[in-house]
Amino acid sequence: MVQKNVRIRDVARQAGVSTATVSRALTTPDLLAEATRENVFAAIRATGYRVNKAARTLRTRQAGAVLVLVPNLGNPFFSRILAGISARLGDHETSVLIADTMDRVATGKSLVDYFLDSQIDGMICLDGGLPENDLQQFRDNGLADRIVFACEWVQNTDLPSVRSDNIQGARLAVRHLYELGHRKIAHVTGPLDNVLTHARREGMLIERGRLELPARDEWIIRGDFSLESGREAAEEIIRMENRPTAVFCASDQVAFGLMSTLTARGLRVPEDISVIGFDDIELSDFYVPSLTTIRQDRHALGTRAASLLLECIDPQSTADGHRKTPVIVDVELIVRHSTAMA
Amino acid sequence: MVQKNVRIRDVARQAGVSTATVSRALTTPDLLAEATRENVFAAIRATGYRVNKAARTLRTRQAGAVLVLVPNLGNPFFSRILAGISARLGDHETSVLIADTMDRVATGKSLVDYFLDSQIDGMICLDGGLPENDLQQFRDNGLADRIVFACEWVQNTDLPSVRSDNIQGARLAVRHLYELGHRKIAHVTGPLDNVLTHARREGMLIERGRLELPARDEWIIRGDFSLESGREAAEEIIRMENRPTAVFCASDQVAFGLMSTLTARGLRVPEDISVIGFDDIELSDFYVPSLTTIRQDRHALGTRAASLLLECIDPQSTADGHRKTPVIVDVELIVRHSTAMA
Repeated sequence: MVQKNVRIRDVARQAGVSTATVSRALTTPDLLAEATRENVFAAIRATGYRVNKAARTLRTRQAGAVLVLVPNLGNPFFSRILAGISARLGDHETSVLIADTMDRVATGKSLVDYFLDSQIDGMICLDGGLPENDLQQFRDNGLADRIVFACEWVQNTDLPSVRSDNIQGARLAVRHLYELGHRKIAHVTGPLDNVLTHARREGMLIERGRLELPARDEWIIRGDFSLESGREAAEEIIRMENRPTAVFCASDQVAFGLMSTLTARGLRVPEDISVIGFDDIELSDFYVPSLTTIRQDRHALGTRAASLLLECIDPQSTADGHRKTPVIVDVELIVRHSTAMA
Repeated sequence: MVQKNVRIRDVARQAGVSTATVSRALTTPDLLAEATRENVFAAIRATGYRVNKAARTLRTRQAGAVLVLVPNLGNPFFSRILAGISARLGDHETSVLIADTMDRVATGKSLVDYFLDSQIDGMICLDGGLPENDLQQFRDNGLADRIVFACEWVQNTDLPSVRSDNIQGARLAVRHLYELGHRKIAHVTGPLDNVLTHARREGMLIERGRLELPARDEWIIRGDFSLESGREAAEEIIRMENRPTAVFCASDQVAFGLMSTLTARGLRVPEDISVIGFDDIELSDFYVPSLTTIRQDRHALGTRAASLLLECIDPQSTADGHRKTPVIVDVELIVRHSTAMA
């Protein structure tokens, strides 16, 4: 009779060999003596180990590597999250491999294949924009329970995720500007359809409403988290007749692009216009002026995502229920020199 | 008789099956009918295919992935090199996996094991500080001919490499400052024992000598390419009695740290002191003031390293000789607003 949840150690016990020998029989069978090999194969058949692709997912950390999908390695925001992931997985002798989802080859079918070939044991995805088609392929192959989202997530799924308290962060940003006396507050958003964009804009709108601040459509400016979109937002602001006195940017990179162009066009930060970012990347403390921002605890995002993944891929674990509730990491207001009294 | 340079297609021909079947026999033998499996194993024995670890290296791009080792993903310098690598390898249906050498797990023995398990086909190393012990392990396992260095390299080896013209870049930087009337020029170096540190300092010293500029020991300040080391260099410069009027920094990140602290301490850039960097990362155009720097063609560094690796791992290739000469990529002076007349 075929057992459920058969693991490599069950095969080893059945065959009377070590788990390493079972592993060799599967990966380098030609290096084993024929009798040993046939003995292991007989045990595989008897236990039903890995008789189909779905059963493969029952094997735990065979590859010794986890893949992290990053939406854009050009954004220095991700480095400390990766360090947190490495720190946690390093304790489990698991390597961290990284792929940029902007690299078209690393996405789509080839990535699923790579996963199916068991060259990775699990995946931490920092990109909420992973195509539904890819997710479906992971589900079809029984791999969806080996994926954890961090920072970003996919709406309307119950895949486990770790994220910052984005709504609270946006509220803190608006309240800080309000307390400095600002009433005309603009917001440069992230890219349309990004989950972070929605959460930060929502927090901004909630707090603006609560404080009964004036609202103008043109004060919500579309960006995409990039330096260049900060530059474009600055040009828009400079053209406005009813100019805001403060700008909340959806990322630090946007804030740099904005401040650079405002300064080049003769507006002083923070004397003429206050600017606050979101992320607190390392450079924020080294910009001129240093950037007031909302700090995401990037190391904690990384370590907690790694812990969650280790739990998911551990077949002993029974903690299925609570994984569906997102893990929320606190954010913090960091006041520096880019914001001042209105 | 055992053939040399046996490839999977030779085994397939011998067994009268497809290469996919040979591959399955090696990776998921339990999924094949026993007769097919034994047929393939007989062909493996007959051809001598992969009878030892060294023979494994004769297989070409089986994993469909190349590993890129990056010394510090927190430095945004690397992103465009990675994009160049991806662009080139994408044409060959090869995925790019990235590991940070600061992640201790990804280095040393586990990395060699990962390579030996053929989960990667080759490696592009952006870290010249790879321990000799690791290199020796790669050599011992016949893998040294599947490694290409880019940006950085290892002294006294003939491993293939692609690098910027660092000496020329440093000379351009000093000459630019000289032409603006500067005579007292300081240099913030990279970390001790780094090949880029040596090359850029050498270029700086060559040009300073050629132009007969004054030299003071204290004007050579040790840094480590980081923002923080730029901050420390600024503090040193502020304390000097004989202060330089211009500073050539070994990286853009150092220049940002330097400018941020000089400004905070009341010195104006470029009015009181000119600053020039090295790299031309994206942010350099968005700093206040925008940074004059030496542009490395990061995309070309990536594409050329990938081309060189593809050539190395192609068993058909006979271009062994010229790989030992480093490929040198031109650099360019980009004049912005952080340098001015002395």
